[in-house]
Amino acid sequence: MQEAKSANRDSAGVRVMGPSAAGAAAFDLDHYLKERAALVERALAAGVAASEGPAGRLLEAMRYSLMAGGKRLRPVLALASCEAVGGTVEAAMDLACAIEMIHTYSLVHDDLPCMDDDDLRRGRPTNHKVYGEAIATLAGDALLTDAFKVLARSSAARRMLPAQALLDSIAELADAAGSDGMVGGQVIDLLGEGRSMDLGELEHLHSRKTGALFVAAVCGGARLGGATPSQLAALREYAQALGLAFQVIDDLLDVEASTEAVGKRTNKDQARGKATYPSLLGIERSRELARELIGTAQAALTAFDHRADPLRMLAAFAVERKL
Amino acid sequence: MQEAKSANRDSAGVRVMGPSAAGAAAFDLDHYLKERAALVERALAAGVAASEGPAGRLLEAMRYSLMAGGKRLRPVLALASCEAVGGTVEAAMDLACAIEMIHTYSLVHDDLPCMDDDDLRRGRPTNHKVYGEAIATLAGDALLTDAFKVLARSSAARRMLPAQALLDSIAELADAAGSDGMVGGQVIDLLGEGRSMDLGELEHLHSRKTGALFVAAVCGGARLGGATPSQLAALREYAQALGLAFQVIDDLLDVEASTEAVGKRTNKDQARGKATYPSLLGIERSRELARELIGTAQAALTAFDHRADPLRMLAAFAVERKL
Repeated sequence: MQEAKSANRDSAGVRVMGPSAAGAAAFDLDHYLKERAALVERALAAGVAASEGPAGRLLEAMRYSLMAGGKRLRPVLALASCEAVGGTVEAAMDLACAIEMIHTYSLVHDDLPCMDDDDLRRGRPTNHKVYGEAIATLAGDALLTDAFKVLARSSAARRMLPAQALLDSIAELADAAGSDGMVGGQVIDLLGEGRSMDLGELEHLHSRKTGALFVAAVCGGARLGGATPSQLAALREYAQALGLAFQVIDDLLDVEASTEAVGKRTNKDQARGKATYPSLLGIERSRELARELIGTAQAALTAFDHRADPLRMLAAFAVERKL
Repeated sequence: MQEAKSANRDSAGVRVMGPSAAGAAAFDLDHYLKERAALVERALAAGVAASEGPAGRLLEAMRYSLMAGGKRLRPVLALASCEAVGGTVEAAMDLACAIEMIHTYSLVHDDLPCMDDDDLRRGRPTNHKVYGEAIATLAGDALLTDAFKVLARSSAARRMLPAQALLDSIAELADAAGSDGMVGGQVIDLLGEGRSMDLGELEHLHSRKTGALFVAAVCGGARLGGATPSQLAALREYAQALGLAFQVIDDLLDVEASTEAVGKRTNKDQARGKATYPSLLGIERSRELARELIGTAQAALTAFDHRADPLRMLAAFAVERKL
């Protein structure tokens, strides 16, 4: 949900320092993000191709949600992380697509009437409002399943890497998305509605519900770029801190933003009695926490050279640009 | 749905010849099936372990459907196919579990109110009747995702095989389960309700909805057993014919069996105006078709030695025993 809500991320009121002025001047993040998102979208459109066949309606529903725009933050992180350790965009592109497909499936299923029952997503009717609940459920199932197909069949990764690295990326992605990761987090979230949660429980929830896919994107990308174990450990720390910072900022936006600004109903968390960072810590302390987390993410990149600048910039500006 | 409906498979009235009398005497299929199903169930129970943690309810819901019994036909086929080409049960066990997890997820989602809206499965309340729609949807999502984790992390397969063979099995399983396979078939089935379908369309539907997973079980098992390309081609033919035979027999049972005998409501297909083999071909011609398909499956195994006897027996008795 980050991307939809963060259309007006400025309003979270979090400000952090970016990299050095020289680095910032040499690097146009807006341009970078647009160019990378376009690459990802081209690959996604080719990977989930429209079809006139008998299951054409399924592919249409899959593409409706998959090609609905957004900043493509997770896949861009996967590509940037691969490049940060000396790999190529090509090596990580199928992973990037698989991650965006899994992110999209989770949004489609989260929006279902039996879950969050949302009518709008990125300002458009949600999948089940357009295609009905049955097709939306199946479109989510297919996006999830096909994500593993795209990754396992990745000809670039197979050509450029030992099969073992690709197997490890598949296992890591399934871990992040399954009962120990996103789905488990969603269940904790569902069952936690209306009851109090302490800060540790809230962090555990978010590390599974949203953090795990950030970690899979960053570590998977690095793995496919040939990362060393110590690079992987540092990037895991970066991704965990960045993912949590996003969640804190999402919670802040949920309190502050209006429906017009973000394209979906807001402040629903509070209405449902869900625990949030602002409800547990207050707004000011939540902003401070987001800044601290971004600082942790930046610090994790200390040993990396200029090729990690996109990761640095993504963290620095994530909280104040339209990520 | 095969397993639930087939509790009274005798009533389909299909009889075929088994292997030679000597072979049949030397091989106790009932004992074989029970022993193999027990092995699979032990591995499944270990792979999806109960948990007291915050997501314990999710694991409980996953296990409720996964450990609900049944003949475990698909995983037993995977093991038998691995052995038919000289592999070990151990090499294919994680694949067998992954396939049963995917089969189970598909049943949980198929039973949802927005899909088939079934209250009973194998004589017990369906997952969403016990855990609610949200948890049932998520339990299905987690079974599907964790299936890929189990397969990608398979230490036996990693130890015994080139990583490439395991990658190929993952890709083949995702193909069978995704938009080109099961999910696509389910969409064709849903959208086909109430409209006429010719025999070619019906066969295409079933090859995707149920046949693809039979093929993934048999070919995946053989791949992990070190099959040659020509063995894989023969086993694909076996699996395609066997999968279709099962569907024809399911349709026959749906017409003939009563609710008491099979533990779920029957003759629903006809009530919904779904095309079935008996509705297109009549009962007698449908029985004949099932016999022909079993003959095709048997013929595909001609070049295999006695290690393929379990596959032969499974085909021969599938239609008249309680498979």
